[in-house]
Amino acid sequence: MEKKEKPMRTLATLCFVLAVISSSLAQKPDVEKKLKELGIILPAPQAPIANYVKAVRVGNLVFLSGHGPSNADGTYITGKVGKDLTIPQGYEAAKLTGLNLLTSLKAEIGDLNKVNRIVKVLGMVNCTESFTDQPKVINGFSDFMVAVFGEKGKHARSAVGMYALPLNMAVEIEMVVEVE
Amino acid sequence: MEKKEKPMRTLATLCFVLAVISSSLAQKPDVEKKLKELGIILPAPQAPIANYVKAVRVGNLVFLSGHGPSNADGTYITGKVGKDLTIPQGYEAAKLTGLNLLTSLKAEIGDLNKVNRIVKVLGMVNCTESFTDQPKVINGFSDFMVAVFGEKGKHARSAVGMYALPLNMAVEIEMVVEVE
Amino acid sequence: MEKKEKPMRTLATLCFVLAVISSSLAQKPDVEKKLKELGIILPAPQAPIANYVKAVRVGNLVFLSGHGPSNADGTYITGKVGKDLTIPQGYEAAKLTGLNLLTSLKAEIGDLNKVNRIVKVLGMVNCTESFTDQPKVINGFSDFMVAVFGEKGKHARSAVGMYALPLNMAVEIEMVVEVE
Repeated sequence: MEKKEKPMRTLATLCFVLAVISSSLAQKPDVEKKLKELGIILPAPQAPIANYVKAVRVGNLVFLSGHGPSNADGTYITGKVGKDLTIPQGYEAAKLTGLNLLTSLKAEIGDLNKVNRIVKVLGMVNCTESFTDQPKVINGFSDFMVAVFGEKGKHARSAVGMYALPLNMAVEIEMVVEVE
Repeated sequence: MEKKEKPMRTLATLCFVLAVISSSLAQKPDVEKKLKELGIILPAPQAPIANYVKAVRVGNLVFLSGHGPSNADGTYITGKVGKDLTIPQGYEAAKLTGLNLLTSLKAEIGDLNKVNRIVKVLGMVNCTESFTDQPKVINGFSDFMVAVFGEKGKHARSAVGMYALPLNMAVEIEMVVEVE
Repeated sequence: MEKKEKPMRTLATLCFVLAVISSSLAQKPDVEKKLKELGIILPAPQAPIANYVKAVRVGNLVFLSGHGPSNADGTYITGKVGKDLTIPQGYEAAKLTGLNLLTSLKAEIGDLNKVNRIVKVLGMVNCTESFTDQPKVINGFSDFMVAVFGEKGKHARSAVGMYALPLNMAVEIEMVVEVE
């Protein structure tokens, strides 16, 4: 019996170890690889437009400054959603803002795989007074974070409508991130 | 002397122990009981209106999403304070929002007695441009938190006037809570 | 050899210790002294204008309430930047708000030398709809923090334009600070 059992035990142990490894891999997808799969290239970091820094880390929390939908050439998507921009255009602006936030986050922590959780987001939409679909706009950011980070990308959030934003940018988004 | 002193010491010790216990009870009131005393029944949790979650816990901090004054049937108290709503109506909307925040908080931590402190609140009032009594509106939330949690309910806060809010809700409030 | 080497070693050790001390002093300037050098006298703490507290500490983070540009006599700098106030006037209002925030921070932690980092700031400017220079206004706060705290004063920040603020104050600023 002993002789038969031993290989079985070894096999069982091996299976268990493989299961643990694969489950651990499932929980830790490669975020940088995921960005490539999504066809996303993070833009180069841009300098803040005033006397502040893009991110501050305290303990395992990173607080990121309000970012906007800046293009690679430094121009911004501008205007008010509900007048100058449609909801889908606002959605794209929020997604682009998410991209810029990830650029600043990566500059701060070195590797986006260190992200444990996107914790809290304040999504501010430059809009008209009668516009009430701020959540649909900020979804451009939120959908992007979930696409990149999976469950770790799901965050608490507020989405609100602003009277005026710097440079007339279409959205401004700030976030708190938990890192390893 | 010895024989006389001993019962005195025992009595003193007993008094001290009772004082400690009662003071400890005074510091730890039962929050769920308090809600009942106030005649408050927490509504059932509602699904977020977009791609996010109601709360994220990181360490002993819980970050709650922006909540609004939603009724049990899913409708919201809507309109602008200073035009569609009076200050007392705004106050009630802020209180109802507080109720909804506690529902989400309880869903996250299981038991409201685990709350150590309501830490920081951002109270956003949908209002007219000339309205300047945002603090009186957000007091509907703050008074409620102090009624429920006592000293632990006293928080840092900002109260501000918004141009537009999702679904035209009257107020949107987010908060950070410290838990055990 | 031994006899010659010993004093050399002692001298080297002394130099090293002095270097460490002076570098440590360089990293820890006296903030209270810096305020005096800048000719700044912190105003007396004022009571909150509603049912909340000025600051809440949780662990090594202090969350400060939204503060405004209140003068020593309790009056506020009021009005909208872009209409009632120029950018330089808004800048001064933001600086004054920073002063009031430091007053509340000192009341909470006792000594401003305990500040490790100004972490995150939300700077809200009461302005017109077409005003897009919120960053230049909030720089009044940010420049002040860097003048007082040096590198420790550099923070993540959002600067946005508000429709309405309490008492019609020109700016409202809240912040998160890491302390020893």
